[in-house]
Amino acid sequence: MPHPTPGLVGPFAWTTEAAARRAEAGLTRALRPRPAAWGTLDLAGNDYLGLARHPEVTGAAAEAAGRWGAGATGSRLVSGSTALHAELERELADFCGAEAALVLSSGYAANLAAVTALAPVGTLLVSDTSNHASLIDGCRLARGTTEVVAHADPDAVRKALAAHRGPALGVFDAVFSVDGDAAPLPALAAACREHGAGILVDDAHGLGVLGEGGRGSAHAAELAGAPDTVVTVTLSKSLGSQGGAVLGPAAVIDHLVNTARTLIFDTGLAPAAAGAALAALRLLRAEPDRAARVRRTARALYEGIAGAGLQAARPDAAVVSVRAPSAQEAADWAARCREQGVAVGCFRPPSVPDGISRLRLTARADLTSADLDRALTVLTRTAPPSARRAGGGGAAGAPGVRPSVQGPGR
Amino acid sequence: MPHPTPGLVGPFAWTTEAAARRAEAGLTRALRPRPAAWGTLDLAGNDYLGLARHPEVTGAAAEAAGRWGAGATGSRLVSGSTALHAELERELADFCGAEAALVLSSGYAANLAAVTALAPVGTLLVSDTSNHASLIDGCRLARGTTEVVAHADPDAVRKALAAHRGPALGVFDAVFSVDGDAAPLPALAAACREHGAGILVDDAHGLGVLGEGGRGSAHAAELAGAPDTVVTVTLSKSLGSQGGAVLGPAAVIDHLVNTARTLIFDTGLAPAAAGAALAALRLLRAEPDRAARVRRTARALYEGIAGAGLQAARPDAAVVSVRAPSAQEAADWAARCREQGVAVGCFRPPSVPDGISRLRLTARADLTSADLDRALTVLTRTAPPSARRAGGGGAAGAPGVRPSVQGPGR
Repeated sequence: MPHPTPGLVGPFAWTTEAAARRAEAGLTRALRPRPAAWGTLDLAGNDYLGLARHPEVTGAAAEAAGRWGAGATGSRLVSGSTALHAELERELADFCGAEAALVLSSGYAANLAAVTALAPVGTLLVSDTSNHASLIDGCRLARGTTEVVAHADPDAVRKALAAHRGPALGVFDAVFSVDGDAAPLPALAAACREHGAGILVDDAHGLGVLGEGGRGSAHAAELAGAPDTVVTVTLSKSLGSQGGAVLGPAAVIDHLVNTARTLIFDTGLAPAAAGAALAALRLLRAEPDRAARVRRTARALYEGIAGAGLQAARPDAAVVSVRAPSAQEAADWAARCREQGVAVGCFRPPSVPDGISRLRLTARADLTSADLDRALTVLTRTAPPSARRAGGGGAAGAPGVRPSVQGPGR
Repeated sequence: MPHPTPGLVGPFAWTTEAAARRAEAGLTRALRPRPAAWGTLDLAGNDYLGLARHPEVTGAAAEAAGRWGAGATGSRLVSGSTALHAELERELADFCGAEAALVLSSGYAANLAAVTALAPVGTLLVSDTSNHASLIDGCRLARGTTEVVAHADPDAVRKALAAHRGPALGVFDAVFSVDGDAAPLPALAAACREHGAGILVDDAHGLGVLGEGGRGSAHAAELAGAPDTVVTVTLSKSLGSQGGAVLGPAAVIDHLVNTARTLIFDTGLAPAAAGAALAALRLLRAEPDRAARVRRTARALYEGIAGAGLQAARPDAAVVSVRAPSAQEAADWAARCREQGVAVGCFRPPSVPDGISRLRLTARADLTSADLDRALTVLTRTAPPSARRAGGGGAAGAPGVRPSVQGPGR
């Protein structure tokens, strides 16, 4: 893990000054590589269904590497499309109820592809203020113009669209990654449809968790397969692998193949990742209760945390967000949890632009009740005193407890 | 492979009209998934050293998936950094002569990270007009301003920098992906240094091919390890895997860990891809002649093509570019090659903004002379008559033969 070069001179010397300012504000981030035998209870990752280490999934990764090679060797448009990619795309589209799918090398790349390809000059992008960084960067790269609207607010969407003449696209995270709250998709879609706008739903945290058998938020909202709806997903969360995909009408997918820069100018997803995602998808299909299990686990985790007087947000999906008094106390709290064998996420500014630092805990379908007990014991034992609400009882609802914001991990 | 939805209605109906316009112009692109037993001589991919299917590389991918899981499970900053990622970063930095390295999920992501993190507000980005799409998108996302300068032109860089007060960064592809020409890095670096500007070199096509034992273009230009130079590479070309990396002073890498959105908000590279890249790097280190071999093969390929009267560009690295008379003839020519068992790249507008369509052939270290003979036979047999230069003899050099432009496959 690199440490700042002492006394770096030249044009990049300012990076050492920036590091000093971060250190002073208690906002230094560093990579902490984990060992193979971790021995830590992981409530930080996004392996919601517990499939990343499932032997059928890792076995499929290994088999795909042996059969197809370690890399795709080129752009999907040149040498980087294999029959395995096509098979994954067919099954993913079928599972989620879309006409077609396109697999890219990351969820980030999928969002850049979808937003930029569907918002040419003259298009208005209406983007929820809490959208993920990759949607925001997609809006910035798109040739259309962007209006950022209030979080989860169909009326704000309606107002923005009413003031615009010409094509428009509403862009929404279905489940917000830091706080885990679900967007009111049916109402947001209705607002878009009133004005003939397209709908783009990022379901990175919904696939495998929400909807019938984990078919995702768009499926649950009866948007899957609609001619005016495009959905993006990741292969790196519930499907335990790497990569992202865009799902939608075949004409839209074809348009992305022809125009999306993060598809055309990127090497195709590694066969091992495609094979692993396909195996995970088949496991989810065969064991649909995994989706319900992760939701039950998340609720149990939340109830334990709130019952201990900590300020948690009631989870709509797999993520449980716990408020910390300050950035420094959040980092210290997370460090104490880790020392006691429980890994939790710690989100501080600038990842959380509202300035409210949080611990972020993720439920997994394969957590046991002993795991949950251990997590709750460590979390409450290590909590800073000021993390507890005056008067005890930490159920969310008070304003400011869950001002959903984007966070790491797409 | 999706086909345009006939009669798609609603907000995305315009995508079917765009498809019709592409078809009329002969510019339709489609994915052509390849089977596992391809039986085709691949001169289209970027597996320059022939390592993507090397048993040590695919074996390392399989072992990493089994040991670490099929996915990294989260952002590098949360749960997505393993000791394997750290090991790859150390060995990559050491091999290329840099102080530190940071691995991301793609070369595209690495370029977005490096450009945006190193060009805050007030920075002038001086960007070669032929730079790759990912560098261009990095410049567009960065908060600094960008001046695009003539291709491979140190004086143009000097002039742009002279007109600017404040921090600046020169951004250069070391080897241009479509035409395979190398940038004059020492002269470009000298121009940057005269004005105290930082230097960012994208060595996606140089790592494993150029420099001592394949240490890359920056190493060859004595820029590796310099405090004013940052280098990006891919793991998906010479290293046969997936992913990208940024190499540079530890303080710069630390700055990226703290600020680069495509690192913070993306899932870490899959362990299988990290393991494969590390195994490939070790093979390259143990067998340094692989780099010289790919250069020799590229020269032999070029000489055969030019000797047959086709218009090819003399290769500086592994890529041999052959000019086609038109977009449609390029596509037809590539299709005929494929039918006869040789896969070649076909680059047409808008991938090549200069409007000159090309076939792009890549040499590999593991091509035999029988492979080369077969490739030359098929390429010349299938060439459209107008692809031959009047008067025969196709060595490059005439203006317009190699106006280097970006192309697919980062």
